[in-house]
Amino acid sequence: METPIKVIISGPRGRMGKEAVKMVSNNENFQLVGVVDRINEGKKLSEVDNEFNNIDCLVYTDIKHCIKDTQPDCLVELSVPQAAFEHIKTALAYNVRPVVGTTGLNQEELDELETIANDGNIGCIIAPNFAIGAVLMMKFSQMAAKYFQDIEIIEMHHDQKLDAPSGTAIKTAQLIEEVRAPKKQGHPDEIEKMPGARGADMSGMHIHSVRLPGLIAHQTVMLGGQGETLTIRHDSYNRTSFMTGVKLSIETVMKLDRFVYGLENILD
Amino acid sequence: METPIKVIISGPRGRMGKEAVKMVSNNENFQLVGVVDRINEGKKLSEVDNEFNNIDCLVYTDIKHCIKDTQPDCLVELSVPQAAFEHIKTALAYNVRPVVGTTGLNQEELDELETIANDGNIGCIIAPNFAIGAVLMMKFSQMAAKYFQDIEIIEMHHDQKLDAPSGTAIKTAQLIEEVRAPKKQGHPDEIEKMPGARGADMSGMHIHSVRLPGLIAHQTVMLGGQGETLTIRHDSYNRTSFMTGVKLSIETVMKLDRFVYGLENILD
Amino acid sequence: METPIKVIISGPRGRMGKEAVKMVSNNENFQLVGVVDRINEGKKLSEVDNEFNNIDCLVYTDIKHCIKDTQPDCLVELSVPQAAFEHIKTALAYNVRPVVGTTGLNQEELDELETIANDGNIGCIIAPNFAIGAVLMMKFSQMAAKYFQDIEIIEMHHDQKLDAPSGTAIKTAQLIEEVRAPKKQGHPDEIEKMPGARGADMSGMHIHSVRLPGLIAHQTVMLGGQGETLTIRHDSYNRTSFMTGVKLSIETVMKLDRFVYGLENILD
Amino acid sequence: METPIKVIISGPRGRMGKEAVKMVSNNENFQLVGVVDRINEGKKLSEVDNEFNNIDCLVYTDIKHCIKDTQPDCLVELSVPQAAFEHIKTALAYNVRPVVGTTGLNQEELDELETIANDGNIGCIIAPNFAIGAVLMMKFSQMAAKYFQDIEIIEMHHDQKLDAPSGTAIKTAQLIEEVRAPKKQGHPDEIEKMPGARGADMSGMHIHSVRLPGLIAHQTVMLGGQGETLTIRHDSYNRTSFMTGVKLSIETVMKLDRFVYGLENILD
Repeated sequence: METPIKVIISGPRGRMGKEAVKMVSNNENFQLVGVVDRINEGKKLSEVDNEFNNIDCLVYTDIKHCIKDTQPDCLVELSVPQAAFEHIKTALAYNVRPVVGTTGLNQEELDELETIANDGNIGCIIAPNFAIGAVLMMKFSQMAAKYFQDIEIIEMHHDQKLDAPSGTAIKTAQLIEEVRAPKKQGHPDEIEKMPGARGADMSGMHIHSVRLPGLIAHQTVMLGGQGETLTIRHDSYNRTSFMTGVKLSIETVMKLDRFVYGLENILD
Repeated sequence: METPIKVIISGPRGRMGKEAVKMVSNNENFQLVGVVDRINEGKKLSEVDNEFNNIDCLVYTDIKHCIKDTQPDCLVELSVPQAAFEHIKTALAYNVRPVVGTTGLNQEELDELETIANDGNIGCIIAPNFAIGAVLMMKFSQMAAKYFQDIEIIEMHHDQKLDAPSGTAIKTAQLIEEVRAPKKQGHPDEIEKMPGARGADMSGMHIHSVRLPGLIAHQTVMLGGQGETLTIRHDSYNRTSFMTGVKLSIETVMKLDRFVYGLENILD
Repeated sequence: METPIKVIISGPRGRMGKEAVKMVSNNENFQLVGVVDRINEGKKLSEVDNEFNNIDCLVYTDIKHCIKDTQPDCLVELSVPQAAFEHIKTALAYNVRPVVGTTGLNQEELDELETIANDGNIGCIIAPNFAIGAVLMMKFSQMAAKYFQDIEIIEMHHDQKLDAPSGTAIKTAQLIEEVRAPKKQGHPDEIEKMPGARGADMSGMHIHSVRLPGLIAHQTVMLGGQGETLTIRHDSYNRTSFMTGVKLSIETVMKLDRFVYGLENILD
Repeated sequence: METPIKVIISGPRGRMGKEAVKMVSNNENFQLVGVVDRINEGKKLSEVDNEFNNIDCLVYTDIKHCIKDTQPDCLVELSVPQAAFEHIKTALAYNVRPVVGTTGLNQEELDELETIANDGNIGCIIAPNFAIGAVLMMKFSQMAAKYFQDIEIIEMHHDQKLDAPSGTAIKTAQLIEEVRAPKKQGHPDEIEKMPGARGADMSGMHIHSVRLPGLIAHQTVMLGGQGETLTIRHDSYNRTSFMTGVKLSIETVMKLDRFVYGLENILD
């Protein structure tokens, strides 16, 4: 067996942080050697929250201290944007490879991190969306749109969602727009007998937003051609779905020697 | 084995008629004893169209003549409305039970046929839609709507369809309206960022019309409740799908002693 | 507005009990007037668990005491079988209508409760499965099987499920067996090139069990006829899905004057 | 507008050939300049079959003659393997680029054609399966399998299909095997209470074959990860679905300077 990758996690008490602590602890290819938090200096993680029982690594409030003590290979950064930028810079300075899920870094900060990572030939992954399934759904839809120009997106969410269409549906359509010329779909003389029946129009693609109690977060992209349809569907059942992406990013960042933004850019 | 039901078919050269001739000929519980047509008096059916090879029953242009010669139990009436009314009346007069797929009879004619059939205690089925699957989809949606008031209808058709939503989608919603009080669905403060995203609104239900090349005729009714969804879907792949309904109607009409309008009223 | 139905709940700290407490408290047609528990006599429910904050009804360890104090219309019984039988008998004796989700009552006990309820003309509902969506899926599948004899069941669960097929899939097939004669499906000379491809066989129906991480509990019943398919699907996303059934049962039991076993028997 | 690509079609009376004739004739970027057939030398295509009315190009029985007369850019070869090999060689000799759907060429023949095309820097595409949707489904499944190792394939066909699983399902699993290490899926102690419930096993993946009247040809590949599933589905509704692939191949072969085997290798 290979030597496990030594990981520190920043932001261990947040929603993503908690899941990341559990995932890294339970994966035999990883070793959780410390966590960085705003409080609880010197405590064991198992003393901080009983979700963490049996996880004995130490809490540090200073990331430099943490890095010097634990000699990690990788920083998983999941804290707030105000702290994240300095954490990532510090990690890079010590040749620790960052995997960053914190959103809210501005373009200037991102540019600076890119320069540091690329100049130092150090892997660094910043991903606003770690849900691999959703990223693949968008990627495949874009790829298929080169061959099937008639596309309908049906996104389905719980009925407490405020906005329609969902951000993912719009992003999917934008990615498709990059490869597909605008095209009016359907019969040229199509009549919408009830307004809205044909959904929202985006460069001729149609987007339909379904809202029902019971549903969680689902999206179907249908592409039609002569005599056939191709359908790509993602179902997100709960908030742990981004963990597959965090795991992949830790493994990948160790082989990288440059800055990468967006999970889609580390997927083959 | 039981004695087969003796059947005559009116309108054998039409689209539905051709399929009915083949279905009745190939079903061992039925015996095709004659057909009624506007032309081809005295010919064998096999001489009329080579789709009918090996089907040797005679063509009659006069329904009385046909009935007297063949002594049928059942008339399957699939010709034009102008001829159908007299055919059905004649059949009832001779105690031959009609199964009618012809659309276009007016209310006065329907009322008269109902009176004749009920007064004579003779079974008579008139069904504008013989597709059992579609009828069951609508019936189940209506039944389920008593328990799940949040409903979204997604109908999907080929991209040469002119109108949206489809007639079946509207009829489904109307049937649901009979048992469900109007209800605004979704978040009370829902924002449609792109017009049409939430589909057409019918008493608070939402209807979405998908159009793609490749598709044929499909409808999904989704009902949501706390922590669960129930989905009822009908896929129609080709125009022979109504044959299951014709077959059922022939079997059922033989046990009926009254007039029935609509396939849904002979389904349990 | 009508006077709310006064409800007491037995077993408020169990998994179903907690959800029932919240549902009854939040429904304006119901009034939670007391709970029956093994412990915590005299406490307010809000003192027992902080999930129950703001729910101020009292905890009773004796059901007679609870009934005399609170004058309820309905008992929702969700405790263990050892306690449930006496609770239900006591409720019936005081003309309080039971809605029972406790499983494990034996046939003798069920028979005795049926006699008491029917002799006294008191409504009583005992339901081993309160998930309306699942019950409707089974009911609709059975209804449709009269018209479509070719049936395939695909049940899909998380990959920690031990048994395949699921109990619901087997029960669905059993209900269909009541109305469908055994029939070998597929091509008569069908060849299974890889064993198991065609799934499990039950009177000629085929059952397929899909297991994947991510999935929760889902079942699709597909019925095929000439040129069409009818699909009925139930998705259970979490354990609160039975609450729709508890709510319906409380409303229904108030109008009943007899014993009913099984949610399917109160659905139209 | 660009000059249209001049196309000749070999095998115009076959099932694929007829569709190809119509597609090429109706596409403004293509010009059908001749067809090669075993019979009907010198006739107009419109005289051969009334499906071809208004298509006036000539029928040639000799491909050399056809090429010299019509100066085509591309040969679409859809005839029998016995004739196809010589046709393709002749086309390459005259610098006409072949798009070949004929199956049954042997490895020696394929190798020889590859050498001729590559040596001459002439584009040549040989594709046993022109259904782009099916090819993309397989490609995406393989790509996604790198990230989601738990995979179930559900293929669904009409009930007159003899073999289970389908060739496409097996090919999909083989492509996934190239990128996924064998893995036993499901609960380690899983119990199959009814044999076959868990489907066929291929390196730990499960394959389920559904057969129902009404269905045509459909396949769903489901991949599961923590809290999410990704589903890729292809529906083939009729036999014209390969035309999108033929069209793409004609466009692509004009830009190629080498031999390509398999549609997947011209898709990005």
